[in-house]
Amino acid sequence: VAHHRHMAMSDSPHPQPTTDALDGVRPVDRLLLDLEADPDHPGDLRLEVVPKLCRTDGRFYGGAALAASLAAMEAVTGRRALWATTQLVAPAPIGSTVRVGAEVVASGRTVDQVSVRGWVGDDLLFLAVGSAATESPDGIAGLGQRMPDVPVPDDCEPWRGPGDQAAALRGETLGGGDGPAVGHHLVTEHRDAPILSPSSDRPGHFALWARMGGDLASVRPVMTPAILGFVADMVPLAVTRACGVHGAGTSLDNSIRIGDVRDADWVLLDLDASVAAGGFGHGTVNVWSPDGSLLATGSQSARLFSIEDFLRRRDG
Amino acid sequence: VAHHRHMAMSDSPHPQPTTDALDGVRPVDRLLLDLEADPDHPGDLRLEVVPKLCRTDGRFYGGAALAASLAAMEAVTGRRALWATTQLVAPAPIGSTVRVGAEVVASGRTVDQVSVRGWVGDDLLFLAVGSAATESPDGIAGLGQRMPDVPVPDDCEPWRGPGDQAAALRGETLGGGDGPAVGHHLVTEHRDAPILSPSSDRPGHFALWARMGGDLASVRPVMTPAILGFVADMVPLAVTRACGVHGAGTSLDNSIRIGDVRDADWVLLDLDASVAAGGFGHGTVNVWSPDGSLLATGSQSARLFSIEDFLRRRDG
Repeated sequence: VAHHRHMAMSDSPHPQPTTDALDGVRPVDRLLLDLEADPDHPGDLRLEVVPKLCRTDGRFYGGAALAASLAAMEAVTGRRALWATTQLVAPAPIGSTVRVGAEVVASGRTVDQVSVRGWVGDDLLFLAVGSAATESPDGIAGLGQRMPDVPVPDDCEPWRGPGDQAAALRGETLGGGDGPAVGHHLVTEHRDAPILSPSSDRPGHFALWARMGGDLASVRPVMTPAILGFVADMVPLAVTRACGVHGAGTSLDNSIRIGDVRDADWVLLDLDASVAAGGFGHGTVNVWSPDGSLLATGSQSARLFSIEDFLRRRDG
Repeated sequence: VAHHRHMAMSDSPHPQPTTDALDGVRPVDRLLLDLEADPDHPGDLRLEVVPKLCRTDGRFYGGAALAASLAAMEAVTGRRALWATTQLVAPAPIGSTVRVGAEVVASGRTVDQVSVRGWVGDDLLFLAVGSAATESPDGIAGLGQRMPDVPVPDDCEPWRGPGDQAAALRGETLGGGDGPAVGHHLVTEHRDAPILSPSSDRPGHFALWARMGGDLASVRPVMTPAILGFVADMVPLAVTRACGVHGAGTSLDNSIRIGDVRDADWVLLDLDASVAAGGFGHGTVNVWSPDGSLLATGSQSARLFSIEDFLRRRDG
């Protein structure tokens, strides 16, 4: 019953501002992040770092920090999240309780500027800046990019990362192909979407179909800024790919700008590298609906490492 | 004499951490922003909103806020700025004194996470998050994009915006082609760089050559993260172009990620639109050196308006 209520409420185009922060969170975002009101800090939200909100190493996932930032911005303003950059300050282990507090630093006729902080106890976990906006139905609109040509999801094979990738980083063999027991892949599904007209000018460019899965399959096809932020956190893989390195990255931030949001079952993560130098790199992601609408565009910076370096350091 | 000392010190690959924040600012960045130590707040910097640091409407320029954020991050860490997102909270009129304070929120072996705040008196002007990093000479490096084909700067015509554009917004005719007396065009030069192989898939894509000019021509060819942030603030023009609208945008943030920085006289601003919906839009800029190195990549979100709407509101 609760579930049906959630789904019905999620049809509301905008969250509603209230004194209880949780009332302003979209129902599917509550389900995604298990958000609660923080009884110790009225107006703040809290969540627990549970397995679905972790990286495969058991620490809080950057995409979850971005999703929580976006949800908190919407709750405190009653407007749709427009963009957010979430700086990842510290790792948080599984089981931590994260307090999320949003502050409106400027409020205008159509747009609010917001900052969000995530804490574990007295320690700052993440710091976000961003805006939430009330869109104008006849406001300026347009599209500057085109979705790459890829096969439809039904014709694409499952993508075995990040579970397989993480296992490779740990030098483990997966038993039975189920992947690690901890990680956001518990609630997401990805398929490898081969780009049909690749360009040698973009050596990092690759694409994945993504959708919510596992216990969160029920939220489909609702798409929210928080869900987009949650699934889009794959950029460093494009950057190491462009560098010709079998590796990964430690994200320094997760940034997203929300475009023409509409419901979709699968979304295409169109990932690309910008540039890397001295062990640090930057890349982008466009998130498309199957009909070619650009739902969001994101970017990230990361400290990059090869799997060889990772294993060498681990093994001393 | 002072000027030569500045230029010599700017050859140092990294700023040096000191107790006096100003000592950690690159000399060319001091010249760019007229940065001083804030005598009332030890460790903080300050600057005055002078004409070169304004938009053509006489308010503090977003590119200057981003540049000040990057310079402050370098000063407080002694490391090279890697990325920054500067949220523009409030406008500041010409003549304001801006206090800039940076705080290291996490410090690691190779990278620091920093937040920066700009204030006018007790009012928050901007809020930035970002990182500064110590690059590894043999760290992972690579390039994921290719510079568009454009004529060399000597074969390109002067670009008359943003001065002409601003005059058009105000319904003015320029007298003698000198443009408005206030604006960052006082210290920058731009040339229209026609893209030789345009794609109909990217209707907002356009390019400009940019360099420091006027009283700041002497800093050439030194290139710093702050200079890159200063010149890169043109993204909303690509977004309105993609929307088929003769208009502009009010930036909500200025974001930049620093790549393979090297000295250059001219740099190419490779501007493109992502998506716009409901009157708000997002776009990107790649900043290239003439030899095809990607110095930086940036993005912005903005509230968009057409010139017709602007004039209609202004005229009641």
